[in-house]
Amino acid sequence: MSSLPADSVYRTTERTSPTRGRARASYDRELVHSILDEAYVCHLGFVRDGAPVVLPTLYGRIGETLYIHGSTGSRPLRMAGQADPGLEICLTVTHVDGLVLARSAFHHSINYRSVVIHGTAHQVTDEEEKRVALDALVDQVVPGRAHDSRRANPKELAATAVLRLALEEVSAKCRTGGPNDDPEDRSLPYWSGVIPLAHGHGAPLPADDLDPAVELPDYLSVL
Amino acid sequence: MSSLPADSVYRTTERTSPTRGRARASYDRELVHSILDEAYVCHLGFVRDGAPVVLPTLYGRIGETLYIHGSTGSRPLRMAGQADPGLEICLTVTHVDGLVLARSAFHHSINYRSVVIHGTAHQVTDEEEKRVALDALVDQVVPGRAHDSRRANPKELAATAVLRLALEEVSAKCRTGGPNDDPEDRSLPYWSGVIPLAHGHGAPLPADDLDPAVELPDYLSVL
Repeated sequence: MSSLPADSVYRTTERTSPTRGRARASYDRELVHSILDEAYVCHLGFVRDGAPVVLPTLYGRIGETLYIHGSTGSRPLRMAGQADPGLEICLTVTHVDGLVLARSAFHHSINYRSVVIHGTAHQVTDEEEKRVALDALVDQVVPGRAHDSRRANPKELAATAVLRLALEEVSAKCRTGGPNDDPEDRSLPYWSGVIPLAHGHGAPLPADDLDPAVELPDYLSVL
Repeated sequence: MSSLPADSVYRTTERTSPTRGRARASYDRELVHSILDEAYVCHLGFVRDGAPVVLPTLYGRIGETLYIHGSTGSRPLRMAGQADPGLEICLTVTHVDGLVLARSAFHHSINYRSVVIHGTAHQVTDEEEKRVALDALVDQVVPGRAHDSRRANPKELAATAVLRLALEEVSAKCRTGGPNDDPEDRSLPYWSGVIPLAHGHGAPLPADDLDPAVELPDYLSVL
């Protein structure tokens, strides 16, 4: 990594340094961004009454900042508002790319790409930042959609809490390739290899009450 | 729910009762099992030095017990071994089924099915339970695979830690259907509806060193 410019990788910390599987870890910003940008939901972890809570939620990225949102009544959003220096969270995004079938049960695995972010989330109070963050959240679902929908009105903005998380303590982890059986197992009579997982979009289903005059926009027809 | 037999639903607790979106919550065992059985990875949350950690990991289910595994050197597994009464975890599984595009940015959403399990994970020390749990982990990846691979030998068993989590404090949450725009937004000129997400398997890729005489087993050809 020493050959890369300092700003192309995230600085490692004790908790982003894996205790095992080091060869799979990466701190490359471009890789991290690509993993984040391809997913629809993250898994948001926080601590409540001393116990862990993990909830799936939408998010959006602008540069080195992630935004998550929710009703101002939802638990993590209320907790971030109450907590003075913010809410400590761990935000994880995972893609499952393939099933890895080895001859040995022990070497079964999956091919995956994941990003784990540690940090403190803060409530966004600036109204313009909140609007831009909500656009990013909509564009994470379908790029280009935010400006082809009715943006939030003041009542909706007031009902929505947005949290900001800086991409600082970040690591990616990826597994690719075929099974890693031990040499003595390679002649065993079990099929081995990878079952790739395919992810795609089905045909768009218009809302029941959609005006038939409204055509499918280009950003959806190319999905 | 009062009309259902008591054992067909999970007992609700304060932390499995949603503060919002109550209509989307379910405690139905069959629904929970189906969501769990369809996924390849869960997101495992635990608390380390007071901060949340969320990691993707494989799991397997046997009845009302989930098993997760890892190297005896991995952090959560080591922590569960050290902690006297086990390790408090939150284990979450999510399927993203569709992108919900409303006319208003505010009502954009995703269709999803998720399960959140709270509980205390304990190390499995009984060797036979460990073997059966590892079979369940392999069969979660591909049903029927565990008995068509070389099972763990004593050295591998010793290197693998398995945690047990009882399905007791469990809830599911699902969103289905089209966008829920406010009546006054329904005539806005934005396409609205659902983009279904398709998940499937690609053609199996044999390992580079697979003996060509080994045929693709039936449980893979039907994927």
